[in-house]
Amino acid sequence: MEGFKVLEIKKSVFENNDREADILRQQLKKDKVFLLNLMSSPGSGKTTTLRRTIEALKDEFRIGVMEADIDSDVDAATIEKTGVKVIQLHTGGMCHLDAGMTKQGLDGMGVEDVDFAILENVGNLVCPAEFDTGSVKNAMILSVPEGHDKPLKYPLMFSICDVLLINKIDVLPYFDFDVEECKKYVKKLNPNMKVIPISARTGEGIEEWADWLRTEIKAWNEG
Amino acid sequence: MEGFKVLEIKKSVFENNDREADILRQQLKKDKVFLLNLMSSPGSGKTTTLRRTIEALKDEFRIGVMEADIDSDVDAATIEKTGVKVIQLHTGGMCHLDAGMTKQGLDGMGVEDVDFAILENVGNLVCPAEFDTGSVKNAMILSVPEGHDKPLKYPLMFSICDVLLINKIDVLPYFDFDVEECKKYVKKLNPNMKVIPISARTGEGIEEWADWLRTEIKAWNEG
Repeated sequence: MEGFKVLEIKKSVFENNDREADILRQQLKKDKVFLLNLMSSPGSGKTTTLRRTIEALKDEFRIGVMEADIDSDVDAATIEKTGVKVIQLHTGGMCHLDAGMTKQGLDGMGVEDVDFAILENVGNLVCPAEFDTGSVKNAMILSVPEGHDKPLKYPLMFSICDVLLINKIDVLPYFDFDVEECKKYVKKLNPNMKVIPISARTGEGIEEWADWLRTEIKAWNEG
Repeated sequence: MEGFKVLEIKKSVFENNDREADILRQQLKKDKVFLLNLMSSPGSGKTTTLRRTIEALKDEFRIGVMEADIDSDVDAATIEKTGVKVIQLHTGGMCHLDAGMTKQGLDGMGVEDVDFAILENVGNLVCPAEFDTGSVKNAMILSVPEGHDKPLKYPLMFSICDVLLINKIDVLPYFDFDVEECKKYVKKLNPNMKVIPISARTGEGIEEWADWLRTEIKAWNEG
């Protein structure tokens, strides 16, 4: 029997999601909680990347993870093994989380003992891009097997994220993925986006990613 | 300048999508058009698989392809090179196609000279599963790098499809993907689902997939 909590998320009752997201961010600022919204396609390595991120930062920050999924618990079970606080959020078929749903998750998890909260959003490059969750920063993962043309096809997702992790660079030799071409597409859409190539499997690039997070969390708490 | 048409799809005005889908299927039956709805995550190899499928079957059937995308034309440009009829559908940010939108696409393409119509749906394992497009059969692609646990996480998509193509089997040695485990998960959700391992890159498995399509198209035209 797993020890984590499972929360069935309800549809938000708020009409103005942008306003709710801003209110949530103000509350997080007051509570000194940095919320990261992590998005990607299914299978790009979100959960493995998260495990690596937790390993790199769990001695510096009190981490809490919200695993959003349509109705399974497999990711929360994986994250629980790292020893950090974790809650499974079931969206009941819904393809994204908005700010009201994220707030339900944060309330369900409890942030009184958390400095760094991470939302693993539903695996989808389309819908989650349209809803501000109230997060402080948005990160996305694109993995090498998905192809370097994805910024052309999912421009909104690449536009609203602060950082792009190009994952699975250990299999670059077996795929036609052009990292420089990908960066070019990304910079056209979003000149300020930070791009970090990583391999969640081997650990390559994780230190640069952890450094980016350290800087951002510090800025949020001091700013 | 590409020669294909680009159609901006409008939101459907129909309230009962299941009814509209049934009406569309009846019309397709009358017109002797077999419509395949092809779904997957971004980057699982839908367009490459489609190219292989066209190569295998274009001498036997008059093929027409509808490429649905949020707002890019890259897939239609690729498919146009195969010489078959192709139209690009822009969903304007919408994450799926319903029956009314599919009908707009079929009308825009024209089916008077088409026996086998293929809809490449928006890359997403969540939303397209919820809307019957009016297709005769639903196919999905799961690629090896995405992981064999995806049926656990996107059960609806695996439940509504008639056939699963496990793509990119040429890279099986570099990933922890267990084909038998995947089949077990699938059979529990959907005992009638046909599972065909393929590599769109090398062509492995494409003949079995083409045979499945031949049988289904024949059954539709004769039934």
